Amino acid sequence: DYTKLNKIVIGVCGGDGIGPVITSEAHRVLEYLLRDEVKKGRVEFKVIDGLTIENRVKANKAIPDDVLEELKKCDVILKGPTTTPRAGDPWPNIESANVAMRKELDLFANVRPVKVPDKGIDWTFFRENTEGAYTLGSCGLNVDDDLAFDFTVTTSQGTERIARLAYEYARNNNKGKVSIITKANVVKTTDGKFLRICQEIGKEYPEIVTDDWYIDITTAKLIDEKRRSDFKVFILPNLYGDIITDEAAEFQGGVGTAGSANLGNHYAMFEAIHGSAPRMVAEGRDKYADPCSMLRATVMLLSHIGYQKEADKLERALDKCMYEEKKYVITGRDNGATCKEFGDYVMETTQKL
Amino acid sequence: DYTKLNKIVIGVCGGDGIGPVITSEAHRVLEYLLRDEVKKGRVEFKVIDGLTIENRVKANKAIPDDVLEELKKCDVILKGPTTTPRAGDPWPNIESANVAMRKELDLFANVRPVKVPDKGIDWTFFRENTEGAYTLGSCGLNVDDDLAFDFTVTTSQGTERIARLAYEYARNNNKGKVSIITKANVVKTTDGKFLRICQEIGKEYPEIVTDDWYIDITTAKLIDEKRRSDFKVFILPNLYGDIITDEAAEFQGGVGTAGSANLGNHYAMFEAIHGSAPRMVAEGRDKYADPCSMLRATVMLLSHIGYQKEADKLERALDKCMYEEKKYVITGRDNGATCKEFGDYVMETTQKL
Ligand SMILES: CC(C)[C@H](C(=O)O)[C@@H](O)C(=O)O
Ligand SMILES: CC(C)[C@H](C(=O)O)[C@@H](O)C(=O)O
Repeated sequence: DYTKLNKIVIGVCGGDGIGPVITSEAHRVLEYLLRDEVKKGRVEFKVIDGLTIENRVKANKAIPDDVLEELKKCDVILKGPTTTPRAGDPWPNIESANVAMRKELDLFANVRPVKVPDKGIDWTFFRENTEGAYTLGSCGLNVDDDLAFDFTVTTSQGTERIARLAYEYARNNNKGKVSIITKANVVKTTDGKFLRICQEIGKEYPEIVTDDWYIDITTAKLIDEKRRSDFKVFILPNLYGDIITDEAAEFQGGVGTAGSANLGNHYAMFEAIHGSAPRMVAEGRDKYADPCSMLRATVMLLSHIGYQKEADKLERALDKCMYEEKKYVITGRDNGATCKEFGDYVMETTQKL
Repeated sequence: DYTKLNKIVIGVCGGDGIGPVITSEAHRVLEYLLRDEVKKGRVEFKVIDGLTIENRVKANKAIPDDVLEELKKCDVILKGPTTTPRAGDPWPNIESANVAMRKELDLFANVRPVKVPDKGIDWTFFRENTEGAYTLGSCGLNVDDDLAFDFTVTTSQGTERIARLAYEYARNNNKGKVSIITKANVVKTTDGKFLRICQEIGKEYPEIVTDDWYIDITTAKLIDEKRRSDFKVFILPNLYGDIITDEAAEFQGGVGTAGSANLGNHYAMFEAIHGSAPRMVAEGRDKYADPCSMLRATVMLLSHIGYQKEADKLERALDKCMYEEKKYVITGRDNGATCKEFGDYVMETTQKL
């Protein structure tokens, strides 16, 4: 409960790729909305640079020690996307900073809402955020030149806490239904365990209907206009949550419009659901990046730390800019608004509300 | 090359769940189209019963030995969906019969076309079919009550052969582009290897553009009407191929309309891309199941064994029934056509062509 803290420290960490440009727009609006709280000393902003690919490569660590230390001094974090080295890149094989931060700060729940009222879509995804294919994703095994292994991990505790959070959310928001998504017919041990535990916890919520589907058919059902509004709340292992939330966000305007909350018992981090878009940067299109994902993340951050009025205000401004007035359209290319133009527009709209 | 065989033996295996009802419609049309070949002794049909969940449970094997022996006597197989036991079911933990058959007959490539001309969709998915999360999907490890592991496998050979097949297809069909889909930023060892090998093989096809995307953002791009026609041919590890082909099929009318070819060096098996729909059976709706997936699989089978004229004929009849005349509509419920009615309609339409 953040209202009990003397002061809330908000870390702002731009990341790299398109991270800094989209994060700075969100930062600007956030500072505006909380300006009185800052004056009163109730809120403090802490800008954390240094989560760039260059620094991470230099430190040969997913998150350099000094950056991690700074992050741990914050109560909540607004974080821009970060570039992940991968096979064939000129960088060493360090882990994704997103993935590392989720583990280091034990942010076990990745909550991703997708809402498109006129399409009957009002989904909330509870993605398990530290296990599955991600726990040991950087620790695979090359047995020899021909044979490689990766590992998937499911723990009882890890599954219980994400399931409980999802069911509590469903109960408190009268959602009536929770869908558990796995591939337990093939990935039998870990997904089977995940499914079983979620079902067990579901039994403690008799007013909520639980169903379960395989991930493959679920990606089809989201598209089916007659079926998709049956879905309300989803619980998913890490990788399936990653995959399906990008698909789901597309109905709302794309991953550039979708924010997420990464929640743990001690920290909370808010970010875009997408990556750092190195291709946009390489093609000089980063200034056309869409800041809406980070602005939606900011709405979630405000609500999380108890500034619900401010959260509602920003959400209203975003809806106006994105769906109603549409004075600027973001296309990611030079026939659309720049990130800064769109940020100004959201800022002005927020100020007028 | 099937034209060199004295006789082609076609196995027909109904499976269970909705399998038998949809397979029998496909079987009927196939026998009609090849009736002269049967008379000439060039083609023989072999009906293989016994791939039911009851028999598999009794044998405690994914495929009972006698069934496997029969299957191995065939040159090509038309197979209905089969029910896969999973956590919580009253059955032992036997493997999916699909998965087992792909391994036993070394059907390394799962080729899944999705075509919707008026949406600019003309995709062919080359799903690696024996490795990834599937190789050891039934061999996970429960370390103790709290901790479970599953394993993902990638081999060089396994990746090379699917990549080569996809690039050869792209070359022979002037597709111009191949997209490699992985999650190599997280599942670094196996997906990293898969990506690297596909890219290497791509270099042998300089006239073909290769790009690569992560599976999460790819599920969004398929929906994006402005981007999706950029995609032509996909190469994917097993699990991502499983997931994304269900999504892709939705644009074409759902998984009930999509067939697939499971190809190896010695055998080939043709099936629906979906499962046995136990829920439909439980609700008494199996007679309303859509046979189109099995009929599309039949088109692929005919083409594969060299009966291109017959394949084209059936494809034409299906397009007429599904998209043009639409005398019957399949809904999966009692407000739609039954499987048998739709099968009759396709049969009559085929006979008239
Ligand atoms: C960038 C990547 C490591 C990350 C993930 O896979 O979790 C992203 O796709 C996300 O969903 O937040
Ligand atoms: C039924 C299931 C085991 C199967 C798979 O996962 O491969 C199916 O979804 C498919 O795509 O053929």
